[in-house]
Amino acid sequence: MSNATRYLRIADDFPLKRGGSLPEVQLAFETWGARNEQDNNTILLFTGLSPSAHAASSTEDGAPGWWEWMIGPGRPIDTDIYHVICINSLGSCFGSTGPASIHPVSGRPYGPDFPELSIEDIARSAHQLVSLLGIEALHTVIGASLGGMTALAYSIEHADQVDRLVSICSAMRADPMAIAVRSLQREIIRSDPAWQDGHYYPQAGPVTGMRLARKLGLISYRSGQEWMQRFGRERLADVRHSRDMFDIEFQVESYLDSNARKFVARFDANSYLYLSRAMDWFDIADFGETDQAALARIRARRALVIGVESDSLFPIHQQRALADLLCELGRDVEFVAMPSIQGHDAFLVDRDRFSPVLRRFFADDILVTEQDRFEVRECATSG
Amino acid sequence: MSNATRYLRIADDFPLKRGGSLPEVQLAFETWGARNEQDNNTILLFTGLSPSAHAASSTEDGAPGWWEWMIGPGRPIDTDIYHVICINSLGSCFGSTGPASIHPVSGRPYGPDFPELSIEDIARSAHQLVSLLGIEALHTVIGASLGGMTALAYSIEHADQVDRLVSICSAMRADPMAIAVRSLQREIIRSDPAWQDGHYYPQAGPVTGMRLARKLGLISYRSGQEWMQRFGRERLADVRHSRDMFDIEFQVESYLDSNARKFVARFDANSYLYLSRAMDWFDIADFGETDQAALARIRARRALVIGVESDSLFPIHQQRALADLLCELGRDVEFVAMPSIQGHDAFLVDRDRFSPVLRRFFADDILVTEQDRFEVRECATSG
Repeated sequence: MSNATRYLRIADDFPLKRGGSLPEVQLAFETWGARNEQDNNTILLFTGLSPSAHAASSTEDGAPGWWEWMIGPGRPIDTDIYHVICINSLGSCFGSTGPASIHPVSGRPYGPDFPELSIEDIARSAHQLVSLLGIEALHTVIGASLGGMTALAYSIEHADQVDRLVSICSAMRADPMAIAVRSLQREIIRSDPAWQDGHYYPQAGPVTGMRLARKLGLISYRSGQEWMQRFGRERLADVRHSRDMFDIEFQVESYLDSNARKFVARFDANSYLYLSRAMDWFDIADFGETDQAALARIRARRALVIGVESDSLFPIHQQRALADLLCELGRDVEFVAMPSIQGHDAFLVDRDRFSPVLRRFFADDILVTEQDRFEVRECATSG
Repeated sequence: MSNATRYLRIADDFPLKRGGSLPEVQLAFETWGARNEQDNNTILLFTGLSPSAHAASSTEDGAPGWWEWMIGPGRPIDTDIYHVICINSLGSCFGSTGPASIHPVSGRPYGPDFPELSIEDIARSAHQLVSLLGIEALHTVIGASLGGMTALAYSIEHADQVDRLVSICSAMRADPMAIAVRSLQREIIRSDPAWQDGHYYPQAGPVTGMRLARKLGLISYRSGQEWMQRFGRERLADVRHSRDMFDIEFQVESYLDSNARKFVARFDANSYLYLSRAMDWFDIADFGETDQAALARIRARRALVIGVESDSLFPIHQQRALADLLCELGRDVEFVAMPSIQGHDAFLVDRDRFSPVLRRFFADDILVTEQDRFEVRECATSG
């Protein structure tokens, strides 16, 4: 964990949506910028499945964060203006309570006895953190991928607190292809004998399964077009065909392998399994009779919805559907269709496209009066 | 193997493109229809990675084949007119020599000592079979997926024998996304301890690895749109949430599992590994200085190239590129872009779209004079 990481014990006996409860919950988080006098400049950032709360560097921790180019002084999410909180999701393994945490009574890691986790639990735990920090209103709740689902849940269930919503490469519910990919990732991990039905602590656990699951993740996060440009059919320089015909030969195989090995070293397998399943279960229909009714609970005055044309895991029609529904409900919604070729991961890497869109959204800053706000976009969305 | 399966020992000491040789090669094949008097009505059909030679039923074997609706009396490939040969690819496990075959000297299965296999080897072994059958000219060489690559290799290397070429959901070379998917499938299989470095015979071998690899195959063969229509977020009727949160819950998970279990029961893991790697290596550039030069070797008078818009494994731009190049070379080429939602597998299941296109192509039958042939299509391709 980073030097910048702060920890708060946010609850004793935290009941979970799908049943069971956690005897205590701690969340790890980082903050950037300062709360202003009116205390209306806080942006709450939810992460995707695997990042920590270290979204950007700071004086306490100079290491670049996973959204380094997005957050900081003068950056699109300008920490000279905004106070940003990024939370390590409940269930993750970077300081927040998760399956690798020690159960306070048994003294052993929860492992597979961790109760079933839902996106709503992640959102509600974050709300308790925000409350403990004494923050009553959020300027924006923002998230991508799993974080976008969490931002949506937060904006519905704690509607009065959220003035703006930013949903990136996310969805109102997982579609069956995304469920299939994640289901296979989980089965790969669980099929590794080292998983030991989740009781692998203090060992590293299913390292092979995690490496393979991560490779499948990368395949689903990126696009064929990008890899054609980046790798083509390039071979490694030192391939010895005669040794092992199944060994790494193509650059794309090498890329997958080195990325996956880095990932395995830092992520807990059980956390992965729990957060992955939580994404399958998430369904906006759980918040209301219809999608419209669920979204009608959102009180955010403005929303920015971003999709990526080459995203195969959260296809852009899912973002468009969310934007259209919010628009029909009379919300001030901007929908942006990014022509990035980096697939689902574009929000992490396509700085040139994402920076100006987020900068513009947040440049409409908190000191600007209502009348000066961007004009309401039409329902016929851009891109 | 089917009652209709025939076997021919086509070679002693069959040298392979990438080095090494096989001391003997047997191929399994099936035929439908009869050779006509002029002996110019034979269609040679190559399969995808996993099917056997049993493409359709016959009097010897009434069981439906993998392309049952395409081949038979009165069907698009009309066996009242044509003589059809389908070959189980060299390296496969349905009667043709492959890694599970017994090495004639050692008396044990080849296993991982099987030499490196290439698409060109599959094509050349087929050519030897055709020659042994005394067939000098082929009306058409046709194949989809791996079979399309084989058909391409055959049409280049045995150009004088091929009058027409049909390439379906195939490519001039594998792109890095397809290589990544297959590389991961192979690693999943090889990571299963039961693979035993390929020395698992007479045991079934890496059953778990094969099941998981097949699931990844299915994910790459189909499309999210299709699964949204077929499965949506439907649950199994008998899910007991409280038992195992990672157990099969969604219909799409159940579909993957039942399909994968069937597959594992019938396919040899080493065959899978060898044929999979052969697809990665295939590159039209190996046949000439440039793609144009390679394709210029094809002497087929007509070509039909079919791609599927939702195919993520062999994206349609790959078929379009093949058709465009053949067109530039002055060949009579028809390109058809199928709007099927079944992805790469559309050729196996989208009967409504594929039947009329193939029927039309083959209805231009061998008795029609040159002048009556369909008019030459323009290079600006349809669809």
